Amino acid sequence: MKRSGTLIRTVMGEVQARIASRTYTPGTRIPSVRAMAQAMQVSVSTVLEAYERLMAEGVLSARPGSGYYVAGPVAPLALTELGPRLDREVDPLWISRQSLETSSDALKPGCGWLPASWMYEAGMRKALRVAARSDTVKLAEYASPLGHPPLRQFLSRRLAGIGIEAPLEQIMLTESGTHAIDLICRFLLEPGDTVLVDDPCYFNFHALLKAHRVNIVGVPYTQTGPDIEAFGAALLRHAPRLYITNSGIHNPTGASLSPVTAHRLLKLADTSSLVIVEDDIFADFENTPAPRLSAFDGLSRVIQIGSFSKTISASIRCGYIAARGEWIESLVDLKIATTFGGGRLAADIIYQAITDSGYRKHMEGVRHRLGEAMDRTVPRLQAIGIKPWIIPQAGMYLWCQLPQGKDAATLARTCLNEGVVLAPGNAFSQSMTAGDFLRFNVAQSGDGKLYEVLKRALSAQSPEHLVPG
Amino acid sequence: MKRSGTLIRTVMGEVQARIASRTYTPGTRIPSVRAMAQAMQVSVSTVLEAYERLMAEGVLSARPGSGYYVAGPVAPLALTELGPRLDREVDPLWISRQSLETSSDALKPGCGWLPASWMYEAGMRKALRVAARSDTVKLAEYASPLGHPPLRQFLSRRLAGIGIEAPLEQIMLTESGTHAIDLICRFLLEPGDTVLVDDPCYFNFHALLKAHRVNIVGVPYTQTGPDIEAFGAALLRHAPRLYITNSGIHNPTGASLSPVTAHRLLKLADTSSLVIVEDDIFADFENTPAPRLSAFDGLSRVIQIGSFSKTISASIRCGYIAARGEWIESLVDLKIATTFGGGRLAADIIYQAITDSGYRKHMEGVRHRLGEAMDRTVPRLQAIGIKPWIIPQAGMYLWCQLPQGKDAATLARTCLNEGVVLAPGNAFSQSMTAGDFLRFNVAQSGDGKLYEVLKRALSAQSPEHLVPG
Repeated sequence: MKRSGTLIRTVMGEVQARIASRTYTPGTRIPSVRAMAQAMQVSVSTVLEAYERLMAEGVLSARPGSGYYVAGPVAPLALTELGPRLDREVDPLWISRQSLETSSDALKPGCGWLPASWMYEAGMRKALRVAARSDTVKLAEYASPLGHPPLRQFLSRRLAGIGIEAPLEQIMLTESGTHAIDLICRFLLEPGDTVLVDDPCYFNFHALLKAHRVNIVGVPYTQTGPDIEAFGAALLRHAPRLYITNSGIHNPTGASLSPVTAHRLLKLADTSSLVIVEDDIFADFENTPAPRLSAFDGLSRVIQIGSFSKTISASIRCGYIAARGEWIESLVDLKIATTFGGGRLAADIIYQAITDSGYRKHMEGVRHRLGEAMDRTVPRLQAIGIKPWIIPQAGMYLWCQLPQGKDAATLARTCLNEGVVLAPGNAFSQSMTAGDFLRFNVAQSGDGKLYEVLKRALSAQSPEHLVPG
Repeated sequence: MKRSGTLIRTVMGEVQARIASRTYTPGTRIPSVRAMAQAMQVSVSTVLEAYERLMAEGVLSARPGSGYYVAGPVAPLALTELGPRLDREVDPLWISRQSLETSSDALKPGCGWLPASWMYEAGMRKALRVAARSDTVKLAEYASPLGHPPLRQFLSRRLAGIGIEAPLEQIMLTESGTHAIDLICRFLLEPGDTVLVDDPCYFNFHALLKAHRVNIVGVPYTQTGPDIEAFGAALLRHAPRLYITNSGIHNPTGASLSPVTAHRLLKLADTSSLVIVEDDIFADFENTPAPRLSAFDGLSRVIQIGSFSKTISASIRCGYIAARGEWIESLVDLKIATTFGGGRLAADIIYQAITDSGYRKHMEGVRHRLGEAMDRTVPRLQAIGIKPWIIPQAGMYLWCQLPQGKDAATLARTCLNEGVVLAPGNAFSQSMTAGDFLRFNVAQSGDGKLYEVLKRALSAQSPEHLVPG
């Protein structure tokens, strides 16, 4: 009796070990009682009892006449476990967390947004005071399904200004720009689909797409937009479902889409069922608007999204989607099912701030300041051998190449110890071919200490350091 | 030449019709050129040309040596197209939209929340004024990954008060209660998994789970929690991954979980890998707290979520998740990837309001008012033959049965024409067995017109009307 009990536990242990090692995955039919008995050199009744006990524990399930199956659920979705393990310096998840967590006394030239003091603080304060006096319903109730009509009206007018005709019912509000893209991904993508991104692109696109378990294919980005030949080849080769890009000011390069590239890209897309998401969050930083894919396309296959986090405030969340009417209908259903009502007060506060007479002036000031910061930062970086890939016409980003033989991830690690948070190129590169690039934010690069730390860290990184010791 | 062109278009049309009707789905290999030629009685070269043109249009793709495949993407996810088509009166998507959209002069006894004037308006106004004076960083920057520490600290203390030990790092903020459940679903579920819900339950659970494309199984809900025998049987039969419930005040029934049911349910769960989400958004309405699964379980397999939409304001979005530490880590990654930073200002405003000395007094007043409204509503409904299933100890919901032979969806349709928005039982019932039930919100049922309209609509619904004419 004792002996048989031990054998039963041995069989149970064997099955559980194979489940733990993923030899048997959930849903797998495990060997029949007879086969297992033979394989483990035990009696059929021992295996039968082991399987029955594993059933009672919920590890196995039986389907009459068909055998025993692994009943356990699949492991929960840990984004860090998906895909190859990355060095944390170039891991989008780590970088996002790092940038959201870093204490305010660190220097953050790698940060993706403006310093708090550059944001529209006066407008926010005023809007909050107005909100404090607004009517009861505004203070207490859910937003309507599409979201605050006055803000959508404002967006409709603003879009018309850059040649995009989007009536009110083709614009919906979301919780943020990222939330907007996420809803579109839920709407359009299945795990295993292919999505094109620019290489390099905003690193959180990688994390977001990872969460959707799709194949990410990078298209090299040129100074006038994606490389059209590579784009066409990727269309043919991968039949991608979606392409996500920035047209106005590209993150991380600061480049802008040219009209010719826009035209060619859309012409290529015409031979496919590709949908394009144009993330337009940097629109208000432009001095002269670059072409928009959504304007060329007329919101047919192109969806435009945006938010106010980069100009007004990142503390109050609100984004939008402008797309074909029937897509908006489905997207609103998805939004309600997955977040219920939107933030009515957030939308109202953004509306107050963005329609305040001070906003235009504020943004003029920001653009001017960014231009000055750009002019100052470029020579300071060049002086230590860090070379801008392009001098952007506007915005805060400067995409730079390190001197030959230097590695950006190593540099980021060294500088972090000195309280300087950098954004190494491979965090933005699907192909991991930007190992000698860094993205600088000129609005966060004014402190002289940055250049001292960079210079020291660069010269410490002699070629010998790269040879595995 | 002309003739052949027509034939080519006929073949193309045939293929496209089969794709539209889903006979050929994306990824399907379509008949070979030879087979199609034979089937359609045309030449091989005609089919070849048709297939080539469909390739050029992106409808088909060819894999050398293997044939032609449907290239198109799967259709976008339209929630309305998933599952059986429901009458709109009991369709969760329609009801949610309806409740978010209805003009304020309609009577809304079916509404799931308090009237705006019952919410914590004074607290919100004060919190907004405080926010208008807060420091620059609070006004402008993203929240930290887990979310505003003071609010999480407050939640940790509040949870401790009902016997749930959740240190700061086991609590994360979300955009809303629904967003909290959605993140958990993304974390734990795969399409095709089975999820248990109470029958009846909050209708948006159905919509949310539909968006995750899982199998929903309802467990009958009794006056002390889910029917334990049915729950055990469902565990064995369906090996569900998740169970979503309310413990404190159940939506829509107003019932509360008993300690015995809590114990038995968790004991049953011990034989499985079930995870339980306890949606605790009605906690502040309780006069004496009911047992919590999360307290009994110690946040091992139970995850608690909540929000402030039902008590402070639905206009400013903020929710939370309290769970095992390692789960919170993965959930934060998912949150950042899919929405980036959280709403720092929203969390701060909620924190100001909920820690204001007036909040406790406000909620005492609300509970008192709800008690009075309950006492008034019950006899008024009984007087017209509508019978409460249970008299809830607290909260706003009253789950009621119509007189024999009456149909709630029909009643809802009739009453909507008279400006009264009802919530018919089958919207809450996975098994569609609550066709003669309605959920009333006692805080929205004070107007005498409601009872007149109900009475008239009920008597108009004579049995003859139910016979198909």
